[in-house]
Amino acid sequence: MINPMELQVQYRSDMTVELVKHSASDLDVMWAARVSTNGERANKKADIASDSEVFGLINFLMRERHGTPFEHSTFTFFVSAPIFVWREHMRHRISSYSEESGRYRQLNPVFYVPDENRNLQQQGKPGQYVFVPGTYQQQMHVQVRTKELSRIAYVEYQSMLRDGIAREVARMVLPVNIYSSAYVTMNARALMNFLSLRVKDPTSHFPSYPQREIEMVAEGYERIFADLMPVTYEAFLNNDRVAP
Amino acid sequence: MINPMELQVQYRSDMTVELVKHSASDLDVMWAARVSTNGERANKKADIASDSEVFGLINFLMRERHGTPFEHSTFTFFVSAPIFVWREHMRHRISSYSEESGRYRQLNPVFYVPDENRNLQQQGKPGQYVFVPGTYQQQMHVQVRTKELSRIAYVEYQSMLRDGIAREVARMVLPVNIYSSAYVTMNARALMNFLSLRVKDPTSHFPSYPQREIEMVAEGYERIFADLMPVTYEAFLNNDRVAP
Amino acid sequence: MINPMELQVQYRSDMTVELVKHSASDLDVMWAARVSTNGERANKKADIASDSEVFGLINFLMRERHGTPFEHSTFTFFVSAPIFVWREHMRHRISSYSEESGRYRQLNPVFYVPDENRNLQQQGKPGQYVFVPGTYQQQMHVQVRTKELSRIAYVEYQSMLRDGIAREVARMVLPVNIYSSAYVTMNARALMNFLSLRVKDPTSHFPSYPQREIEMVAEGYERIFADLMPVTYEAFLNNDRVAP
Amino acid sequence: MINPMELQVQYRSDMTVELVKHSASDLDVMWAARVSTNGERANKKADIASDSEVFGLINFLMRERHGTPFEHSTFTFFVSAPIFVWREHMRHRISSYSEESGRYRQLNPVFYVPDENRNLQQQGKPGQYVFVPGTYQQQMHVQVRTKELSRIAYVEYQSMLRDGIAREVARMVLPVNIYSSAYVTMNARALMNFLSLRVKDPTSHFPSYPQREIEMVAEGYERIFADLMPVTYEAFLNNDRVAP
Repeated sequence: MINPMELQVQYRSDMTVELVKHSASDLDVMWAARVSTNGERANKKADIASDSEVFGLINFLMRERHGTPFEHSTFTFFVSAPIFVWREHMRHRISSYSEESGRYRQLNPVFYVPDENRNLQQQGKPGQYVFVPGTYQQQMHVQVRTKELSRIAYVEYQSMLRDGIAREVARMVLPVNIYSSAYVTMNARALMNFLSLRVKDPTSHFPSYPQREIEMVAEGYERIFADLMPVTYEAFLNNDRVAP
Repeated sequence: MINPMELQVQYRSDMTVELVKHSASDLDVMWAARVSTNGERANKKADIASDSEVFGLINFLMRERHGTPFEHSTFTFFVSAPIFVWREHMRHRISSYSEESGRYRQLNPVFYVPDENRNLQQQGKPGQYVFVPGTYQQQMHVQVRTKELSRIAYVEYQSMLRDGIAREVARMVLPVNIYSSAYVTMNARALMNFLSLRVKDPTSHFPSYPQREIEMVAEGYERIFADLMPVTYEAFLNNDRVAP
Repeated sequence: MINPMELQVQYRSDMTVELVKHSASDLDVMWAARVSTNGERANKKADIASDSEVFGLINFLMRERHGTPFEHSTFTFFVSAPIFVWREHMRHRISSYSEESGRYRQLNPVFYVPDENRNLQQQGKPGQYVFVPGTYQQQMHVQVRTKELSRIAYVEYQSMLRDGIAREVARMVLPVNIYSSAYVTMNARALMNFLSLRVKDPTSHFPSYPQREIEMVAEGYERIFADLMPVTYEAFLNNDRVAP
Repeated sequence: MINPMELQVQYRSDMTVELVKHSASDLDVMWAARVSTNGERANKKADIASDSEVFGLINFLMRERHGTPFEHSTFTFFVSAPIFVWREHMRHRISSYSEESGRYRQLNPVFYVPDENRNLQQQGKPGQYVFVPGTYQQQMHVQVRTKELSRIAYVEYQSMLRDGIAREVARMVLPVNIYSSAYVTMNARALMNFLSLRVKDPTSHFPSYPQREIEMVAEGYERIFADLMPVTYEAFLNNDRVAP
């Protein structure tokens, strides 16, 4: 049990997104698509196509929304994010989640606090909000008070645990900015759907207005996706971020 | 905006589970199952079977785990529960959720506080915890401090909102015992899966150890399910609560 | 067992699509969407909005691709279609199927034969085929020979059954144009996805090239959908048939 | 186009099940499960547990039906099987399929014919059929006539194609014993569900009565699964083939 005198609460303004493992490549998309017209298992050697052929086929699949060839590529991420981000993330049902449990372990005192780059004022109407920077006073308000409230809640959490109260009961006082960690596995099709909804990009065909913090997770996914499936990623951008 | 002087925080120890609408009946299961052997649309009149025939068929489906005939019956519930319950609920991916949004509206000051019937001490090892009643002192600790922490957090939430800070930022200080509401639609097969995992029953074939608060939601579902699909429910119990 | 002397093979050129039951209305979409900003269960009376409000909200949801409010409306259809249509239909995984079984019953001698309106010649390249009418000779070829082959196969099927061979073995000789029947349950969101992919409409945002026979099933669904959820349907068309 | 004079129809009595790629291991299950109690990303080195620890944890997860840790392991298979097998296979919705298309290519003349080991007589009642060997005469009937019918249908298919009739129309005369090929991707949890339903094993907790031909595909999956995830497989057997 942490001694409250020594309690070292950690405040973070970033998200952890690490690639744990993957089985994903542009060539996976190629052979999966070609079975529809070839009917046979791709002969790896004979099938090496020119770069322009690969791009042509993948771009065609994306444009025509033939989504299944993208489902054979999978990614597993390790993600640490505040609970309010997980709440949005888990609305995506085509993913597999294994998450840290507040019933089985004492949660760590790590809390999200917006940094100075986080816009704080919301303008406009639902669905099309615009966010603009907070004033200095607002920044201070958010940072000082979020830290303070996080700390108070955690001290109380510890106090209940010390008093012999079950973890699953004690954790009720913890705020939604506490971090939780999970492994997330999804395929490339589900990932593109996630990116289309959770990254704000004015060039999107269907613009989305995600909360900044889940967008930070999505940006982490997007970098890894772009790195591992560069042709698919280029075709995704080329088609205005519409998931197939 | 609520004046903090007049702030009326509400503390609850129960869950709201209301049936909004349904399209669910034991006869749905009958005709869906019979198409496999009849190949024709059930003639409502000719198909009225005796009670024992109905029970016999449904019990057979349950025992042999023929699950699809149960998927044509659907339920829509309106549920209010604390966020820590929703976090577990939404791990069930075969359901449809439309939930209140902390980005689009100011959340109401309604918080869950365990009542005196809630066991507070956890004993045993992970996966097979046993919960036993708390002492009077523990009960007071949980009730007094949970109320106090909830109130402090909500006052701060209001303070940020008054200061012009966006709802999605201000809500970060709110604890996971704040209530949120959602419509939940699921079919009878998904519902039985939910009940098999979220109700503790020593007679279950596969006993589960759900947190008490999600079990309270599950008990609400179970009462409605038993009322609308009594034969299916009896067969579910008869087969030791194994979802088909 | 049917006497081959009296075998009455039936040839059809249409699909059966009947509404068995539903729990679907435009108002379902309204209250499901409003919970995100209201956080409370819709009061039926107070919530009756003007027609323009209803259309405005539903059109907004469709345009911004907020899909979950459409998931609370469900439809159950009874469909009879040839096996080659079912093969495509069951690739749609967000539906519930209870189908007639060739293992549990003797299949009826009902076969699909294209009528004179069915285009028979395919031109162009994969993914963008254009179909044009067949010549009179081609029509005769298809109709006469498809009927003949269907009949021969069914006679052999019967012969095996008479010889004591199991249904699941005997049915192996039956062609993919034999009809099979199933109950299909899906929600309005899944249905719009089906329509966007299985109806050819040059005004679609993402044009599709479905096989004509599954399009006939989709047209049956579309008529029922338009009838039961007219505002949602209008918003679907208004947004170029993009499923939310 | 194949000259009918030279038509080389191929008859097979087996299934093709090849592992194309995988990202699956017992250790995947370990770290996914441990995050619930550790909350941190497994340190590969420090986490190497003894064999008995690994078996203990995985067996616990299986017994208590904690299924999500098994979802991070994925397999991609290349499978060739008759259409009547695919019809059953694709009822499993938690898988990804990319299949050869009878609209985009001419199907190969490869047909399934039961060999002498295939039981041909069905006894008992629905759901609990018992299959016993056919007589010599029945075997001849099935083999000779299935080959003959397959050949006649394929000759007609070719004849229509030569006459300029579209592939998607001509294929309607082909029987359900023609082979089709597909890539199938599923995770270990979905795979165990498949095995629990598609392999007949009297020691199963919930015995199933699959058609022999899909069981042959399942047996191919099972061998690969046992090889790549031996501890998980042992725990699956140890728990009477109940999928978590």
